[in-house]
Amino acid sequence: MKKEVAVIGIGITQFGELWDESFRTLFVKSGAEAIQDAGIKSDDIDALFGGNMSGGQFIGQEHLASLAMDHTALLPKPAMRIEAACASGGMAVASAYMAVKSGMHDVVVAGGVEKMTDVLTSHTTSALSTAADQEWEAFQGVTFPALYAMIARRHMYEHGTTEEQLAQIAVKNHDNGEKNPKAHFRKKITIDHVLNSAKIADPIKLLDCSPVSDGAAVVILASAEKAKEFCDNPIWLAGTGQATGSIALHNRKDICRLGATVEASRKAYEMAGITPKQVSCAEVHDCFTIAELCAIEDLGFCEKGQGGRFVQDGETALSGSIPINTSGGLKAKGHPVGATGVAQVVEAVLQLRSKAGPRQVSGAEYVLTHNVGGSGGTASVHIFSQ
Amino acid sequence: MKKEVAVIGIGITQFGELWDESFRTLFVKSGAEAIQDAGIKSDDIDALFGGNMSGGQFIGQEHLASLAMDHTALLPKPAMRIEAACASGGMAVASAYMAVKSGMHDVVVAGGVEKMTDVLTSHTTSALSTAADQEWEAFQGVTFPALYAMIARRHMYEHGTTEEQLAQIAVKNHDNGEKNPKAHFRKKITIDHVLNSAKIADPIKLLDCSPVSDGAAVVILASAEKAKEFCDNPIWLAGTGQATGSIALHNRKDICRLGATVEASRKAYEMAGITPKQVSCAEVHDCFTIAELCAIEDLGFCEKGQGGRFVQDGETALSGSIPINTSGGLKAKGHPVGATGVAQVVEAVLQLRSKAGPRQVSGAEYVLTHNVGGSGGTASVHIFSQ
Repeated sequence: MKKEVAVIGIGITQFGELWDESFRTLFVKSGAEAIQDAGIKSDDIDALFGGNMSGGQFIGQEHLASLAMDHTALLPKPAMRIEAACASGGMAVASAYMAVKSGMHDVVVAGGVEKMTDVLTSHTTSALSTAADQEWEAFQGVTFPALYAMIARRHMYEHGTTEEQLAQIAVKNHDNGEKNPKAHFRKKITIDHVLNSAKIADPIKLLDCSPVSDGAAVVILASAEKAKEFCDNPIWLAGTGQATGSIALHNRKDICRLGATVEASRKAYEMAGITPKQVSCAEVHDCFTIAELCAIEDLGFCEKGQGGRFVQDGETALSGSIPINTSGGLKAKGHPVGATGVAQVVEAVLQLRSKAGPRQVSGAEYVLTHNVGGSGGTASVHIFSQ
Repeated sequence: MKKEVAVIGIGITQFGELWDESFRTLFVKSGAEAIQDAGIKSDDIDALFGGNMSGGQFIGQEHLASLAMDHTALLPKPAMRIEAACASGGMAVASAYMAVKSGMHDVVVAGGVEKMTDVLTSHTTSALSTAADQEWEAFQGVTFPALYAMIARRHMYEHGTTEEQLAQIAVKNHDNGEKNPKAHFRKKITIDHVLNSAKIADPIKLLDCSPVSDGAAVVILASAEKAKEFCDNPIWLAGTGQATGSIALHNRKDICRLGATVEASRKAYEMAGITPKQVSCAEVHDCFTIAELCAIEDLGFCEKGQGGRFVQDGETALSGSIPINTSGGLKAKGHPVGATGVAQVVEAVLQLRSKAGPRQVSGAEYVLTHNVGGSGGTASVHIFSQ
């Protein structure tokens, strides 16, 4: 592993329905926390890459990266927004990595923020659906629960996956979220709760879905030289890979496999020089329970089709062989879409610093983060290590 | 000048009200043209950085970079959208530069696309205003013509600039646009036409404004090694600088000076190792005539406050000492907002290849492009050379 780019600071707000917070207070709070955590001054920052899916639709604000610099007194440092639907945060981290690796900048902010609850729920669903193929999916009325329901139904048909196994993922993520003070939901649930919750798009039920959340997360990346100057415990970006998949489901040979996840993780593993077996724990993109099931298969933690059994056997629980979504995941921690990919990195860093409290994975060596846009149109995978 | 990253291919669609073209056909056409121009195969491309301001609001489509890869058969190569309001295209080029410079990728696409005419005009104005400060400007009803009208009025008060001088900028850009087959408007106009056109936001009149356009542009960037392999006449990115300014006008010490432009160009000149006097010609961000006036001052082509006289004396005409907006600029070539910054680079490359036809600047050595987001919240400046 090359030690070239490190995370030297992290910050994250409470995730949830934050009626008392505006878009602006969210990024200011998470940014200030990250700067304090890194022990740097604002002026040490060279640039910002801000992940956000849909400020234009949610709060009538595009040009958000400029606004963020203005309101955090970082003018005239350059800033741009990165958008790849719900993978915007992961792609912002990838951009920040390239910016440092290029030598253009030494210390950069990768941030993610979304304010989703200041609009009508119907509008939120409509805005989120613009991450799908507008002409072939969204315009026809297909929503994201419906798209993932088709994946789930197919996975059941192909591999015998059960609704109980999917429910187990939600239960496990709520178990973890209960241990995370920043989580949207800190409440344990049971398989019966999930199975008896309202049907959203059969077989997906309310408690198979991640919530609509507000929140922001920030990580500060630095070159090896600056990391050593500012930081006693840098966490290195050991590997990173990004990939694109067909944006619409109907164009895929196998809708149970997210080709973008397979390809992005292949590149990340190759760069880090490790195999999936060496990953200590991972944050994966569980926008729906079926998404986590596909992710653990596509990332190589188990064979395709074996995910249901793998989950049922407790392998992905905090005490299992490969704990998944120790933060609570999108399901329980919450899913402010543009912030999610960055929040995953915050959890990875906490695990590698051994600062994850009651959800700590003992001896975490390599932590993987996996962020998906749409139903698999984009995937971003990062691997971190001490 | 370091020869590290080069433009090896360019493509651009017709700009205008393109009722027969969809968002998808626009980026496919410009991309295919750029690939053909570069003489490469699709498979030689490693990644895409797509500039787009507001696909979510204009056409109900976020996640556009993924869509672009899908519809140009570039899967599974990674892609992300870059947004910085009307500077999205310039920032996409900056991202592509960093991606190549970092060594992560060898050959990358920087594209820009916007489909603006498929919605009601009132909605277009509303969507564009989300590039301003939502809480302090847009929500109060201030539109972009109104913001630039305040800048124009102040420039007149401070520096004695006249409406005739501003009109001269529109006349000059239409003179150039008439020579550009891709331009939205290919029609000469007179100062009287401008002065007698409808008032939009006093002193800005209809013919002081750039139009609402559809269009796409693509440039292909490559590492020095790949550029030499694929290309006989690479055009080098000699210098680049990005900067952020206060997003809202009221926070600026001097609204006639775009601090972001001053800072971005300072960095670009420093990297290229040249002074403004060495620039042969430039594409600047003339969303309104007053914006071009501020730009030529802030970029150092003339002193602050002298822009009106400089224009009146013909210094910025095709035959002048520093021809500005040989393409016709945003005013006549058109302004599909996310595409503009990339289209500027297409013109720079044409000039440096001596392929600009009747609008060719003889012996062009350094060509500068200048792209602004909002009323100056973002600025991106690139300098190209042979």
